[in-house]
Amino acid sequence: MPKAKSRSTESADSPKSGGKVPAERIADLAAASRILAAQGVVDGFGHVSMRHPTAPDRYLMARALAPALVTPKDIIEYDLESNPCNAAGRPSFLERFIHGEIYKARPEVMAVVHSHSPSVIPFGLVDVPMRAMFHNAAFIGAGVPVFDIRDKFGATDLLVSDGEKGVALAEIMGRQDVVLMRAHGSVACGASLEAAVFRAVYTEVNARIQHWTAALGDGAPIAALDPEESKLADKVNLGAGQRAWHLWRTLVRSQVKW
Amino acid sequence: MPKAKSRSTESADSPKSGGKVPAERIADLAAASRILAAQGVVDGFGHVSMRHPTAPDRYLMARALAPALVTPKDIIEYDLESNPCNAAGRPSFLERFIHGEIYKARPEVMAVVHSHSPSVIPFGLVDVPMRAMFHNAAFIGAGVPVFDIRDKFGATDLLVSDGEKGVALAEIMGRQDVVLMRAHGSVACGASLEAAVFRAVYTEVNARIQHWTAALGDGAPIAALDPEESKLADKVNLGAGQRAWHLWRTLVRSQVKW
Amino acid sequence: MPKAKSRSTESADSPKSGGKVPAERIADLAAASRILAAQGVVDGFGHVSMRHPTAPDRYLMARALAPALVTPKDIIEYDLESNPCNAAGRPSFLERFIHGEIYKARPEVMAVVHSHSPSVIPFGLVDVPMRAMFHNAAFIGAGVPVFDIRDKFGATDLLVSDGEKGVALAEIMGRQDVVLMRAHGSVACGASLEAAVFRAVYTEVNARIQHWTAALGDGAPIAALDPEESKLADKVNLGAGQRAWHLWRTLVRSQVKW
Amino acid sequence: MPKAKSRSTESADSPKSGGKVPAERIADLAAASRILAAQGVVDGFGHVSMRHPTAPDRYLMARALAPALVTPKDIIEYDLESNPCNAAGRPSFLERFIHGEIYKARPEVMAVVHSHSPSVIPFGLVDVPMRAMFHNAAFIGAGVPVFDIRDKFGATDLLVSDGEKGVALAEIMGRQDVVLMRAHGSVACGASLEAAVFRAVYTEVNARIQHWTAALGDGAPIAALDPEESKLADKVNLGAGQRAWHLWRTLVRSQVKW
Repeated sequence: MPKAKSRSTESADSPKSGGKVPAERIADLAAASRILAAQGVVDGFGHVSMRHPTAPDRYLMARALAPALVTPKDIIEYDLESNPCNAAGRPSFLERFIHGEIYKARPEVMAVVHSHSPSVIPFGLVDVPMRAMFHNAAFIGAGVPVFDIRDKFGATDLLVSDGEKGVALAEIMGRQDVVLMRAHGSVACGASLEAAVFRAVYTEVNARIQHWTAALGDGAPIAALDPEESKLADKVNLGAGQRAWHLWRTLVRSQVKW
Repeated sequence: MPKAKSRSTESADSPKSGGKVPAERIADLAAASRILAAQGVVDGFGHVSMRHPTAPDRYLMARALAPALVTPKDIIEYDLESNPCNAAGRPSFLERFIHGEIYKARPEVMAVVHSHSPSVIPFGLVDVPMRAMFHNAAFIGAGVPVFDIRDKFGATDLLVSDGEKGVALAEIMGRQDVVLMRAHGSVACGASLEAAVFRAVYTEVNARIQHWTAALGDGAPIAALDPEESKLADKVNLGAGQRAWHLWRTLVRSQVKW
Repeated sequence: MPKAKSRSTESADSPKSGGKVPAERIADLAAASRILAAQGVVDGFGHVSMRHPTAPDRYLMARALAPALVTPKDIIEYDLESNPCNAAGRPSFLERFIHGEIYKARPEVMAVVHSHSPSVIPFGLVDVPMRAMFHNAAFIGAGVPVFDIRDKFGATDLLVSDGEKGVALAEIMGRQDVVLMRAHGSVACGASLEAAVFRAVYTEVNARIQHWTAALGDGAPIAALDPEESKLADKVNLGAGQRAWHLWRTLVRSQVKW
Repeated sequence: MPKAKSRSTESADSPKSGGKVPAERIADLAAASRILAAQGVVDGFGHVSMRHPTAPDRYLMARALAPALVTPKDIIEYDLESNPCNAAGRPSFLERFIHGEIYKARPEVMAVVHSHSPSVIPFGLVDVPMRAMFHNAAFIGAGVPVFDIRDKFGATDLLVSDGEKGVALAEIMGRQDVVLMRAHGSVACGASLEAAVFRAVYTEVNARIQHWTAALGDGAPIAALDPEESKLADKVNLGAGQRAWHLWRTLVRSQVKW
């Protein structure tokens, strides 16, 4: 197995930093990686990013590293073309363009999670739409589009490994909070780091519940959240979801010092 | 994500306490939260309450906090309108009315668990009744009604966030030990804290078994407990169930000092 | 929830002990309880017993206690009527008659496990025979009968709580290594403690595999072990199975001193 | 249960060693055993081997021992007839011939994993081909043949316990990276230890995803990776897969000193 080809793209032409980010927010981003691993949303792969809190044309993401191992010092800053500002030799994720292009297309999005969570993948492979099985997954009620990279790019390695592919993904995502990627995984985003992590976790939980519901009903109609319920419930989740983040962040803190 | 809106409703008009509760019972209630988390019945959400042991018009429940983090000092006392007696600034669960209204409607009920346990949710979404797959789940044999908040309240955020909704839920629950909430979760209750926790856990276990049984039988009849067997087995469970509680409580004690 | 009614049946008429059992074998039996809990075969309920190594008319089993908590000092000796020789006030399992009656009916059986393992229960509820999905479960190839307590005893609490019910169960079990109990659980036995534990674990593993195989095949024939393959593979398992026991026993030893 | 019959075949006629192997590679091989156990690919059974780095006619594999317990000092060297060079009384796995015969037939293969991972077994029992559900499992895109030992050897104990059976398995495997064994398990191989472990893990993950996809689609077509996508994605995996190995190896290192 050859050495990973993740590129270290730092150079004299590296874009400028958008300015200092509070250490606590960097720590939260590193913790988010570990939370997603602990919740079974990511394994050795997958990544989470956060828009720079004061420079909207920059975002922050770990170097190419398994999410469970990320620490604050692994966080790199990128411009929206996904060029690293301060890689210092650290390799970048091949698929960072997912993040950069969504930040470009969606000014309100402040965080993005990309994962291959196993219960979610089936919904990108057969023609069964994901629906909101319970109020915690209300963000799914607006619909989950499926991005098939083959439609525009033919046979590929499936990776969103350049800006053009990132643009195509962001277009299919549109204004939704979650987008499925055929034979690959999914992306969840939110107006805060906490919201994006919450949605990534509950997309996976909702997928598990929908599998069992579909099997139990065997074709019968499913009394999922309707669009109006979804809107109303999602608003509450954005507040109550802090309870889950507080739990998850506390568990990470019990294992590391940051 | 805005700060959680759980209300801190303490004021000069706070209801009076029903009197002192033995510290060990408060500790048991806090432990019940952690037990439910350890058993996969609750995650960052869900709550368990206990009627005040000597004041039947009061109940005890944790402040709005992830169940796995609850400690004895997080327990708040409420009247049956779900007004806190001693919040002291601590926020209350939005859905505490589930508890208050069940205690009002069911004098014999001494504890209530509300959860979104993932295997249970499907039974509230399709028209397949939950049945008792084995003797430990005999309490299900009397039937599990489904509460659809939409029937009476139209489109909502799905939460039982006031007394009126709590009353409607308690009405659908009737004399049963478990009630499903469409697109939301379920409630289990019992004549003791231990019994309510036991039922919440085995509702989830039974749901998992019923999923596999339904899939395996593919429409064939299921030789579940019949009503008479259910009654007979439930009586034994109320005694033998102490063995499970003893195990779970011991495991919590190995992690905390109370 | 009233105190568990497990009877403490010790008296002046207690049967005599069959003689001293090596401490290491008692420790192995206690470890077997913990192994079954660690492997998900038992939860707060279930039990494992061992025939007395030198007195075939006696057997050894823990007092009524969750399997994960059993220690060597919890082991009680019984005669084959399931009367305790040395209870000393310790309560006995209500269903110890499962063990006593199988030891009576099957002189070659040296150990018995009773469990409610969740993947196994469905096979007792619908008319789909359990079959051997892989060589480690070859002991299933000879067939797994289903005991329905209702056939002979009508509506009961489902428990095998006296000798007569134990006899009926042993009759249905016949010469097989595993018997299912409708709406209850199953029993596995073997010519050694290690073999019975191995079979209890792989009955559960095999059940999980069969569920997925049945779902995947959707009615198509399953190329399970045939009877001759089952016989040949079972012989090898009895030897190679020691590797699994060695692993499980080592893991218990890393947590306790016996 | 008689003592395991794994043979200790050391003698004056033992084949010569192929030469010293760096301690770090031996440690990696021992770690690979523990990684496969931690990832749920192996339980008390299963084994992983590595071709000798400088002597292509030798390979290295643990003595007959549960994978989770393997340490560097348990590693034995074998010739391609699967005769141990340095057993020193340590028993060998009965099925080491799987490894020896694949190394003979496939000069480019540097590591082999044999497992009974539970989600994979169903694909060997019914006529549903395993397909690549996501890019990480691209190595499956070339097809996964099924070896039925019964075709050539009639009723057996299912084990590949001599060279002739190993040859038959290697023939069915052909040039593929994974082969299923009916009613038994599977084998994954790769051009490095890391690649073989990666494939064993993602064969299991892919199987779980395919089960849910098949259930969800209920006979509808599955938009799995096509052959060209598989080839392209597999190339990337061989690099990016190092990220998973790095995670897994780090976790083992946190528990042992090697």
